[in-house]
Amino acid sequence: MEFEESGIGEECGVFGCVAAGDWPTQLEVAQVLTLGLVALQHRGQESAGIVTSNGASPPTYATHKGMGLVNTAFPPEALLKLRHGNLGICHTRYSTTGISELQNCQPFVVDTLHGKIAVAHNGELVNASALRKKVMRHGVGLSTSSDSELITQLLALTPPMEELDSPDWVARIKNLMTETPTSYSLLVMYKDVIYAVRDPYGNRPLCIGQLVPISKLHSTGEGKEEDTEGWVVSSESCSFQSIGAKYYREVLPGEIVQISRHGIKSLTVVPRPEGELPAFCIFEYVYFARPDSIFEGQMVYTVRQRCGRQLAIEAPTDADVVSTVPESATPAALGYAQQSGLPYIEVLCKNRYVGRTFIQPNTRLRQLGVAKKFGALTDNFAGKRVVLIDDSIVRGNTISPIIKLLKEAGATEVHIRVASPPIMFPCYMGINIPTKEELIANKPEFQDIAGYIGADSVSYLSVEGLVSAVQEGIAFHQEKDKIDSSNQSSKSVGHCTACLTGKYPVELEW
Amino acid sequence: MEFEESGIGEECGVFGCVAAGDWPTQLEVAQVLTLGLVALQHRGQESAGIVTSNGASPPTYATHKGMGLVNTAFPPEALLKLRHGNLGICHTRYSTTGISELQNCQPFVVDTLHGKIAVAHNGELVNASALRKKVMRHGVGLSTSSDSELITQLLALTPPMEELDSPDWVARIKNLMTETPTSYSLLVMYKDVIYAVRDPYGNRPLCIGQLVPISKLHSTGEGKEEDTEGWVVSSESCSFQSIGAKYYREVLPGEIVQISRHGIKSLTVVPRPEGELPAFCIFEYVYFARPDSIFEGQMVYTVRQRCGRQLAIEAPTDADVVSTVPESATPAALGYAQQSGLPYIEVLCKNRYVGRTFIQPNTRLRQLGVAKKFGALTDNFAGKRVVLIDDSIVRGNTISPIIKLLKEAGATEVHIRVASPPIMFPCYMGINIPTKEELIANKPEFQDIAGYIGADSVSYLSVEGLVSAVQEGIAFHQEKDKIDSSNQSSKSVGHCTACLTGKYPVELEW
Amino acid sequence: MEFEESGIGEECGVFGCVAAGDWPTQLEVAQVLTLGLVALQHRGQESAGIVTSNGASPPTYATHKGMGLVNTAFPPEALLKLRHGNLGICHTRYSTTGISELQNCQPFVVDTLHGKIAVAHNGELVNASALRKKVMRHGVGLSTSSDSELITQLLALTPPMEELDSPDWVARIKNLMTETPTSYSLLVMYKDVIYAVRDPYGNRPLCIGQLVPISKLHSTGEGKEEDTEGWVVSSESCSFQSIGAKYYREVLPGEIVQISRHGIKSLTVVPRPEGELPAFCIFEYVYFARPDSIFEGQMVYTVRQRCGRQLAIEAPTDADVVSTVPESATPAALGYAQQSGLPYIEVLCKNRYVGRTFIQPNTRLRQLGVAKKFGALTDNFAGKRVVLIDDSIVRGNTISPIIKLLKEAGATEVHIRVASPPIMFPCYMGINIPTKEELIANKPEFQDIAGYIGADSVSYLSVEGLVSAVQEGIAFHQEKDKIDSSNQSSKSVGHCTACLTGKYPVELEW
Amino acid sequence: MEFEESGIGEECGVFGCVAAGDWPTQLEVAQVLTLGLVALQHRGQESAGIVTSNGASPPTYATHKGMGLVNTAFPPEALLKLRHGNLGICHTRYSTTGISELQNCQPFVVDTLHGKIAVAHNGELVNASALRKKVMRHGVGLSTSSDSELITQLLALTPPMEELDSPDWVARIKNLMTETPTSYSLLVMYKDVIYAVRDPYGNRPLCIGQLVPISKLHSTGEGKEEDTEGWVVSSESCSFQSIGAKYYREVLPGEIVQISRHGIKSLTVVPRPEGELPAFCIFEYVYFARPDSIFEGQMVYTVRQRCGRQLAIEAPTDADVVSTVPESATPAALGYAQQSGLPYIEVLCKNRYVGRTFIQPNTRLRQLGVAKKFGALTDNFAGKRVVLIDDSIVRGNTISPIIKLLKEAGATEVHIRVASPPIMFPCYMGINIPTKEELIANKPEFQDIAGYIGADSVSYLSVEGLVSAVQEGIAFHQEKDKIDSSNQSSKSVGHCTACLTGKYPVELEW
Repeated sequence: MEFEESGIGEECGVFGCVAAGDWPTQLEVAQVLTLGLVALQHRGQESAGIVTSNGASPPTYATHKGMGLVNTAFPPEALLKLRHGNLGICHTRYSTTGISELQNCQPFVVDTLHGKIAVAHNGELVNASALRKKVMRHGVGLSTSSDSELITQLLALTPPMEELDSPDWVARIKNLMTETPTSYSLLVMYKDVIYAVRDPYGNRPLCIGQLVPISKLHSTGEGKEEDTEGWVVSSESCSFQSIGAKYYREVLPGEIVQISRHGIKSLTVVPRPEGELPAFCIFEYVYFARPDSIFEGQMVYTVRQRCGRQLAIEAPTDADVVSTVPESATPAALGYAQQSGLPYIEVLCKNRYVGRTFIQPNTRLRQLGVAKKFGALTDNFAGKRVVLIDDSIVRGNTISPIIKLLKEAGATEVHIRVASPPIMFPCYMGINIPTKEELIANKPEFQDIAGYIGADSVSYLSVEGLVSAVQEGIAFHQEKDKIDSSNQSSKSVGHCTACLTGKYPVELEW
Repeated sequence: MEFEESGIGEECGVFGCVAAGDWPTQLEVAQVLTLGLVALQHRGQESAGIVTSNGASPPTYATHKGMGLVNTAFPPEALLKLRHGNLGICHTRYSTTGISELQNCQPFVVDTLHGKIAVAHNGELVNASALRKKVMRHGVGLSTSSDSELITQLLALTPPMEELDSPDWVARIKNLMTETPTSYSLLVMYKDVIYAVRDPYGNRPLCIGQLVPISKLHSTGEGKEEDTEGWVVSSESCSFQSIGAKYYREVLPGEIVQISRHGIKSLTVVPRPEGELPAFCIFEYVYFARPDSIFEGQMVYTVRQRCGRQLAIEAPTDADVVSTVPESATPAALGYAQQSGLPYIEVLCKNRYVGRTFIQPNTRLRQLGVAKKFGALTDNFAGKRVVLIDDSIVRGNTISPIIKLLKEAGATEVHIRVASPPIMFPCYMGINIPTKEELIANKPEFQDIAGYIGADSVSYLSVEGLVSAVQEGIAFHQEKDKIDSSNQSSKSVGHCTACLTGKYPVELEW
Repeated sequence: MEFEESGIGEECGVFGCVAAGDWPTQLEVAQVLTLGLVALQHRGQESAGIVTSNGASPPTYATHKGMGLVNTAFPPEALLKLRHGNLGICHTRYSTTGISELQNCQPFVVDTLHGKIAVAHNGELVNASALRKKVMRHGVGLSTSSDSELITQLLALTPPMEELDSPDWVARIKNLMTETPTSYSLLVMYKDVIYAVRDPYGNRPLCIGQLVPISKLHSTGEGKEEDTEGWVVSSESCSFQSIGAKYYREVLPGEIVQISRHGIKSLTVVPRPEGELPAFCIFEYVYFARPDSIFEGQMVYTVRQRCGRQLAIEAPTDADVVSTVPESATPAALGYAQQSGLPYIEVLCKNRYVGRTFIQPNTRLRQLGVAKKFGALTDNFAGKRVVLIDDSIVRGNTISPIIKLLKEAGATEVHIRVASPPIMFPCYMGINIPTKEELIANKPEFQDIAGYIGADSVSYLSVEGLVSAVQEGIAFHQEKDKIDSSNQSSKSVGHCTACLTGKYPVELEW
Repeated sequence: MEFEESGIGEECGVFGCVAAGDWPTQLEVAQVLTLGLVALQHRGQESAGIVTSNGASPPTYATHKGMGLVNTAFPPEALLKLRHGNLGICHTRYSTTGISELQNCQPFVVDTLHGKIAVAHNGELVNASALRKKVMRHGVGLSTSSDSELITQLLALTPPMEELDSPDWVARIKNLMTETPTSYSLLVMYKDVIYAVRDPYGNRPLCIGQLVPISKLHSTGEGKEEDTEGWVVSSESCSFQSIGAKYYREVLPGEIVQISRHGIKSLTVVPRPEGELPAFCIFEYVYFARPDSIFEGQMVYTVRQRCGRQLAIEAPTDADVVSTVPESATPAALGYAQQSGLPYIEVLCKNRYVGRTFIQPNTRLRQLGVAKKFGALTDNFAGKRVVLIDDSIVRGNTISPIIKLLKEAGATEVHIRVASPPIMFPCYMGINIPTKEELIANKPEFQDIAGYIGADSVSYLSVEGLVSAVQEGIAFHQEKDKIDSSNQSSKSVGHCTACLTGKYPVELEW
């Protein structure tokens, strides 16, 4: 199921770029930022913003923000405005609060005693409410409900331990990290550097890429120092290919990485409390990330395929064919088919032009529901027993008409296999999940979910199955040499499964 | 490859709807038309138009046309304007001429001595130029370059053999059909009826559906007379599901079908010249149609799968895996995999948000080319020999960067198998094909096409292979009983392969 | 009262330009056309269109049309599209029919056997309905309700007496003029010439200007031949100043003037029926034209001032001050003040930003009515008896709240003096007048109009007074030498007063 | 001259409304705010914003801001969003800084420890730079360059002397007023009240109006308590008529007025330093304000007329007629005519549709300059000596083509009389004045200004003449009884003439 129907939503994507070498750069930074953002569009479609800096002293910043998709929000004149940037950060936003206003759009830029800083944030501060009070008690008025503004004011607020003309932003960022444990992947731009920050639990992803000459893009091994045209930092590595960057490495949980024209430098790794594991959001694997992104050394697609295989082991089916609810469940479906030996076929054809229509709801057409989006490939499955793989069932209201459609088009049986466990708990760390009451797993009907949605049987992947499918492929070896500070705990493995298990990585009453 | 890249384009889609029973109808005709049009959006994205009639005497027509996709072109106030329609026709357009102006947008409505008629047309008149001269010689000025206006004026022009108050539109349509042999699928709305017309060669598709109560939508067999809520007519049957209609039958080559509130009625079948076969465009199967559409009794998806199977027989490959250029080549790839026994995998992930950007072309980013649209699913194929199925190679400029991408990401070999023969000749019957010079099959490089595009080998499906894959599944039996006039020749089978063979169904110098 | 409130509206303005000398011209024809159109904006605000021709053989035409004011309808890319024009015609439209669609927008361009012609039209054909039938009986379908399309088809339709490659458009235009007596001021562009045509009754205005180097713009006398940079033709001479043109002369009633790169040439003057006078619309003087325009050798402002003087003679008032309903009645008010000896003051200040607001109607604010547009300059008239001059009272619903406003702000008496006679009859020649029922002069309340609108007294100018105010200043002498054909009847004086008297210049049942 | 040409510009207009009586109110507060803002549109055309509060505890605020004119910035859905307001404030902005971004648009709303406050500000803080540093030194980041944000943060910042749940905003406002002496007219909305504040020098205007039933709008005397439907506060009284409000009184220099559903209450008057006079901007009279506004008990129109009379005394002319550069100089021209005994005529007709066109500059049309906006009413002045009154000559580049136009159209002499003294100094208190170098009065050419602009003579009104014309009509008597606190110094008279004399009301190095 696509995001819009499931009701689950990522909050944001962040992206940054610093041109290497002499400035003004030949690298078209504003265009790299825009394309990078387009590649993160699946993480937020509500609004987008870019801030560039020329990196001079004092720097000149240019900002453009707009509602809607990146291509809409950034007309040619916006790119013109941003064109003198030698570095920049950007953000694409999915509103979880329902307040869709341009002023909530990131990055947030504020003028401080030390000049302007810009901040882009993916995540949700678990203790935002307490921090807002703290800031306001200091006498600061907050003009938005955005965590990004809050973070920015917290950075400005820190008792100035430094001289006026040499602000110690790193100390301020470390201080911020002691105030709030999670969740944030953060880009802070000041003058001529970007600080890339990931919270100690590593809850949200963040990784670094190296811009090399296109001709050397796919040479094996890492780009040579002298070939580097710039550095990029992104929520997901899927954005690297479209701008001609090579994957370099992840930012570690708790790490502050400084990105400048001279290269990248790990400044510090803020540790978690003794004995606590990282808590990278497991739903990034299951649902949010683009399948070609790499987390923890493994491709998301491969994890999803393993989930499908594991599902075939846990929930085998006596059926004729395996298929997918296009397009996100396809890797799991192929995995299930491989493991089970059943043939993989397509049962649904998606109308890619169906979108927001101005069709008024009415009795007749409303009954057609989500089926308007799909055409049944009848001849492929008529008279057959179908195993239909979905990646998740959140509210249960979208799979039902699809089952009906398949049965009416001739499927003799439809068995639903879900490649993730049921979602049962709210997320406070950056994911928009329907209310507890809306979640099908919390409804009485869940007891007979198959009957409720009209399937012949329904099975979910177990939590253990999901965790093992995720963790069996994790590979950090390739990153070892790139990380200056040797922080063993950051190599330890752990994932946040709170929405599935109710076990949150931190106390919620911070 | 998607349309925008290949340079091939369908010209148009047409759709019509007549509410059954008493008028004013309860059926939301304007919304049925809009949804029907959305489902034909793949046949034209440039502009869209709807004309409704209240069917009264004299009738009141309402028209709305707009540039862009249907959802953009039809804001709520447009639907409001159209809401009193008891019947209507609509059109979605892909410009072949490069003249993208609202005034070329169909349907075309003109006032005649007998009142207003509205015309929607899919196809291209092979003798348009001669007909334009004829019309103008009569003293008619033509305000657009649209064939639809030309047809409309030809209908108005016919010597009025009838009384003023009882125009014989059917005679005029038949007369028109003697003036121009092909290609057209035509909807003509006058007052309270729609005439659905297909040229004698049946070059463009046209079929009829029956609107039934949603509850009875998927009951087997045909809807009962008394359940019919209305009739729809469409370029493709894929539009029926999204509006709650059942497939009824095709309009036959040369047939004029009258659709009124009282039902559908075959008025006549204009014959082809003695001994000539129908010439349904074979590229509708290969490329244009949505895979869930039904032509000549068979599902397009199934034909494409058969093409893949045939290709595996004609051009087997010593390789490890089979994959697709998403999404249109997937049925052929699955067919190839089934026939060859090689495993089917996915090698590319498509960024569905990539669209028209305002990124300026420049040296660095331009080199990335089409690869910006795709992410390589590296782990799926690294170290493997890949057979990559494409549905057609037109200009050869888009497959090349994809092969490069796959090789750089680790494919040891990339073998291209094309599920259709090379396009070598222009189409004069409604398809936009690049100029002869642009077609890769006509370039010297075609001699070493594999070397030119960087593949390890390239093979095309043969014309015979394609024709047999198409024709082996044709089934007319299900339609027999529905056609009043028994016209045997219309059951004969034949397809236009002019763009592949240069054999045009009619003399071009009409 | 401004147009929007009175309910009276002009239908259109036309404008054309031909660059003199060698082509491609240095003259920015598209910009001259745009500025000329802006200066005619008061004649139509609904839509605007420009067609340019490069004048080559065959010519290339460029067309742009848009809804709304000229500045909105013509964005930079529109001007870009039109920039190769060496000549062009344009049109600004006020919809009288309520059908505001781009397709009704002029100029109308059609392709004929002889190539494309473009037509722009100001006026309304008194026998449009009969002509439409005639055209349609010939077998022509009409795609709009526009008289311009009708005229164009009539021009195309004329039995072709000429060879294919040398169409005799002048013969066709003359033929058209025998088919329809009035009302039209017409621009017909074909290849490299514009034909400027005025109907035999001269009902709508049309005049010619000479583009000279700006430095010679205000030299006395006419521009020398060698200085001419181009020729323009316009509904009103007020457009000449803003493009740097000198007033040259009027097109005479019935005259066809050919404008080419070689200069202007009077081709013919089609006469009126024996004994009939010209019928130039007297409301152009009263209401529609810009005050700085020149008709029949006199400035419109001067005529309005004379109307005010005449009104002071016909309807003197015992009062303290004279004022105006800004801004159109100001010349008449100054004339009244001069004649009566009463001091002229301002009583109302207009808010120029009041426009179409999205304020919902509701009890409280609706009561404020038109007064929202005006501020009372209280101190100027408190305690005084005011004579308020208006140029016309059409429906009577706008003057009433103004009187209330003045009285409440302290005027002891308010006497309304209207500088034109009451409108009582419909216009069929191009002016949009409210229905007979809506006209205050036809309502029972008109018997006690002062009581009805709350004034202390009301007087209108008499028809005789208006006619004499208009005709006493007519001067043709300055134009004598410029007109080749000596047509005495065209010098005779006559005006259409049909809306005031019911005496139409032609039989309406043509 | 209109604002756009002179280069002088007001910064802003503010407006507020509180519904009287029980809440939810029947009064359409959002619509009153919108119409009030439209009436202040001449004070700022760049952007507009409205914030409403339902006045509950805690309150719900709704905000809408948009670029452009009020009617553009506030589409129907914006009004829908604001419709639950029982009170609200709004703002229209003219950018002096060149930074036209939505985020600088006022009112500014921030969340504080005590809840949200909204601030709208007209003026410019003379010590903004020092105050920004102060705020930032406290650790507050400022997200805009707007003084309004600065004021809001200063209000939030004040050491909280109060309990958390009973913030003493009045103490905070008074504290703010000790931090910055001028210039500001301020609306602060908190929960269910609006504080209307004027700086101790009264540099910017602010006045209060009483909403009464429309039927009682123009009854003499003040509305009775029980009739009051609400209270409004506005930069100018011209906005009252269009919403059905009666003028009540001015806010005094230094006064804080609380406006609540229970009525208005003067809370305090913060005094100026001993011996200092008020410094109301004299250019509000000369240029900015709408002529029907009332300041210091007198109508602006009357002051302008007195300036014209005084000018006739100071600079009499031997001429035939007196006229105006429409429209702002008309009252002065009528005053000059009355005093001099010369007849008043109109010489220019303004094209009200000329606006921002996309016409490219080029040699020929650029030479036409400002004359494109005006038509010469030639017959009115040909052969005559004209005295042309302008309200100010700022850069001298717009009057010159007008003089040329008049002379070329036949004026024998053109004498310029300017109804204000030359502007020579910058303003730091809220007015946008061209740089010192751009001001004609500071250029060498000013020595022979008549020769420079092509006039036969030029005279300016003296500073003394202007001041006496302004001050002779000031009348405070009508306001006496309404002001609770008796503050004699606020009755003293004084005006800021800094831009004319260089004498600033406060030390600039605050």
